[in-house]
Amino acid sequence: MIKELRVPPKKNIRLADYDPADTSDIKSAEDAREDFKKLNMKMIDLQELMYAEKKHGLLIILQAMDAGGKDGTIKHVMRGINPQSCQVRSFKAPTDLERSHDFLWRYHIAVPPKGMVGIFNRSHYEDVLVTRVHKWVTDKEARRRFKKINQFEQLLIDNGIAVVKFYLHISKEEQKKRLEERLQNKEKHWKFSKNDVKERLLWDQYMEAFEDVLNHCSTVDAPWYIIPSNHKWFRNLAVAKILVKTMEALDMKTPAPEEGLESVVIPD
Amino acid sequence: MIKELRVPPKKNIRLADYDPADTSDIKSAEDAREDFKKLNMKMIDLQELMYAEKKHGLLIILQAMDAGGKDGTIKHVMRGINPQSCQVRSFKAPTDLERSHDFLWRYHIAVPPKGMVGIFNRSHYEDVLVTRVHKWVTDKEARRRFKKINQFEQLLIDNGIAVVKFYLHISKEEQKKRLEERLQNKEKHWKFSKNDVKERLLWDQYMEAFEDVLNHCSTVDAPWYIIPSNHKWFRNLAVAKILVKTMEALDMKTPAPEEGLESVVIPD
Repeated sequence: MIKELRVPPKKNIRLADYDPADTSDIKSAEDAREDFKKLNMKMIDLQELMYAEKKHGLLIILQAMDAGGKDGTIKHVMRGINPQSCQVRSFKAPTDLERSHDFLWRYHIAVPPKGMVGIFNRSHYEDVLVTRVHKWVTDKEARRRFKKINQFEQLLIDNGIAVVKFYLHISKEEQKKRLEERLQNKEKHWKFSKNDVKERLLWDQYMEAFEDVLNHCSTVDAPWYIIPSNHKWFRNLAVAKILVKTMEALDMKTPAPEEGLESVVIPD
Repeated sequence: MIKELRVPPKKNIRLADYDPADTSDIKSAEDAREDFKKLNMKMIDLQELMYAEKKHGLLIILQAMDAGGKDGTIKHVMRGINPQSCQVRSFKAPTDLERSHDFLWRYHIAVPPKGMVGIFNRSHYEDVLVTRVHKWVTDKEARRRFKKINQFEQLLIDNGIAVVKFYLHISKEEQKKRLEERLQNKEKHWKFSKNDVKERLLWDQYMEAFEDVLNHCSTVDAPWYIIPSNHKWFRNLAVAKILVKTMEALDMKTPAPEEGLESVVIPD
């Protein structure tokens, strides 16, 4: 399953070839429940180990269309994680200070240090997505940024920070359903923004921009995954599976104790 | 129970009057389990509301002797909390940059913004505890700092950030037991630091310094609580109870939706 979702480097994929409603060979939410629970427990253990060892970190990047499930993924997949070793950063429109720096500056100061899991809820990829769709940057500048982004991520990787990137793939119909639910459900009312409707009108341009990102910035060390996300339970399962696999590959160990502990006696 | 644990402002308490093994009228961990679960679910809901409303934040300060249970409290009491709306900051020896600022600077930049729960694992109180016990600051300077700390916390409170402070109270014997466990248990081995043994020799001085902190810095708006912490299950229950009560008192509401949503139609 993981291999299929991973965007192969240097191979032009087309988003239209990926079914947002796919659930692999799993039939229902019920069938996924036990597996998800096990993966969640494993992830909690691995993250505890990461915090203890402090040789590796993990940067999780989440991108999606509005209502694509970024917040929900954090809430459900990270459930039970120790907040002491997990940090989430959301990125909105840049402040004046951020704007006066290069486009990667505000992301760089937000990356997780060794020992931590860091989640970017939106990321430096917005600087080649929303900005590109609205033509605030040229295609040429976007291409330049792809290169800089790859170099930036490599810098993190070379320092022991694993980088894993998820595009939560929903269909245009699914977005409509979710936005309507926000409109109708009084509990979710406050989440609705009229701006989401405006952005929806640019759906096709967004798909193109995402395709370009996936094709330029999925590298061997920092892969993009396209997560079929119409079904939230499948999305959660797939993301959890990939996170566990990514962390297992780091081959982490409990750190060695201080030397000479044999002779230590605790005084009364 | 909460009232008894709260340090009354302007009344000289003595730590010796507080039993670290107290469990109020609750007999066993088993008896606390259901209550704790309910409080945990309530806390998760309240924190979700805080994140939505974004009018209030919550700063939780944890202080204790080594092995007093700060990490364990975070892990257990915060279990299930959405990491997107929770940030934990640990403070070790200050860096050169931090040292070149006033003593509150590094804490101020780490406080939770509105909408967030922030936890200080150790805090500005170290600047009147470890520093005082080791005589890096004079008693006179410590008194001056108490005032500055109270003013700093009031600044946060006036901005809508609730401040709640926990001293996790363990007995000297309990600390010995826990340090020995770290020594003997291979899994916890790496947590042991020989320095903890040195600090333990200063137990009485620490108790005095804590007493002074509790007597000078427990205010009506930013109270200190003395949590009997020999029994971890009671510690967790008491902290959870106080957190829920503190958040409930903020009287938070789901934010109002944007205006004019009635006429919005989601296009195909």
